[in-house]
Amino acid sequence: MPHIDLENDAPGIFSLFAYRPETAGPMTELAETLLRGPSTLSRGERELIATYVSDLNGCEFCASSHAAFAAAQLPEGGRLAAQFRADPDAAAVSGKLKALLRVAEAVQRGGPQVRPDDIQAARDAGATDLELHDTVLIAAAFCMYNRYVDGLGTTVPDDPAAYEAAAELIVNHGYTAVTRASG
Amino acid sequence: MPHIDLENDAPGIFSLFAYRPETAGPMTELAETLLRGPSTLSRGERELIATYVSDLNGCEFCASSHAAFAAAQLPEGGRLAAQFRADPDAAAVSGKLKALLRVAEAVQRGGPQVRPDDIQAARDAGATDLELHDTVLIAAAFCMYNRYVDGLGTTVPDDPAAYEAAAELIVNHGYTAVTRASG
Repeated sequence: MPHIDLENDAPGIFSLFAYRPETAGPMTELAETLLRGPSTLSRGERELIATYVSDLNGCEFCASSHAAFAAAQLPEGGRLAAQFRADPDAAAVSGKLKALLRVAEAVQRGGPQVRPDDIQAARDAGATDLELHDTVLIAAAFCMYNRYVDGLGTTVPDDPAAYEAAAELIVNHGYTAVTRASG
Repeated sequence: MPHIDLENDAPGIFSLFAYRPETAGPMTELAETLLRGPSTLSRGERELIATYVSDLNGCEFCASSHAAFAAAQLPEGGRLAAQFRADPDAAAVSGKLKALLRVAEAVQRGGPQVRPDDIQAARDAGATDLELHDTVLIAAAFCMYNRYVDGLGTTVPDDPAAYEAAAELIVNHGYTAVTRASG
């Protein structure tokens, strides 16, 4: 049960967005820009970074959600997303993405944990400055979304169909459609 | 030196906002709503929560910035902000704010760390559901801002005048003025 009365029965972050639309607006715009805006990282790859950080933060709602969003947008589909969640190191993703995940993992532990060596390894694997920037900010942003969702004790659906339905909305209409649907 | 070429010499988060205005927009709007929008917590109190979480995350730039913003907006001014940063538990703030800081501290450690007892203690001290919501989201948001600033190794001014100049901008023109000034 959520820690406060959210006045709606929506799961996870959807209940928070409906409760406080004033903060939902910028939060969904940030997700839209980072995860779906123009980038040399694919939408599927960016969703894997979000999934990875959410799993490190122990946020079941966000990790299941973004794994479903990754599955819906990766050419390899759900099999790669499932393999990735079970064992990110063994998953068939590019060397560049693996190096960016090392940076994301350092960010998740704390900003000062990012070492020049982590940055250089990602550069050596082909990462650009903008890709490094966006990876750091995606990881940092999920340290916010994850804490928001669990810090208020929102409900976590068990049924995979709930995450697949959310994927349908996000993939076809984007993150900002969430606030319009909740509002 | 920053981990990537930010193409400007601004300090801390200002350099990141100038580098990537697409994400700066929603990030400053979120700060504006949480720290300066309508609320039963004063702007000074909300800046103290931001200062507290930034210090817990070891983010010198954000802690010094928001301590200056608190000092400029608290009736007790800089003396209280300085006392608070040195020893938050001993600072002359309300029992309600102290209880909300316990919630913020749990959020900083991780969303699942927030216990029903923390929430109940804040309620017993007079906190409303919306105050609890906003405290959780302020704490979560600073887990993002702090990681963004340090994860990219931005520069940290030593001179207190730099933070006082930023306070002048924020107090008089709001957080969204930052992106207009950087852009």
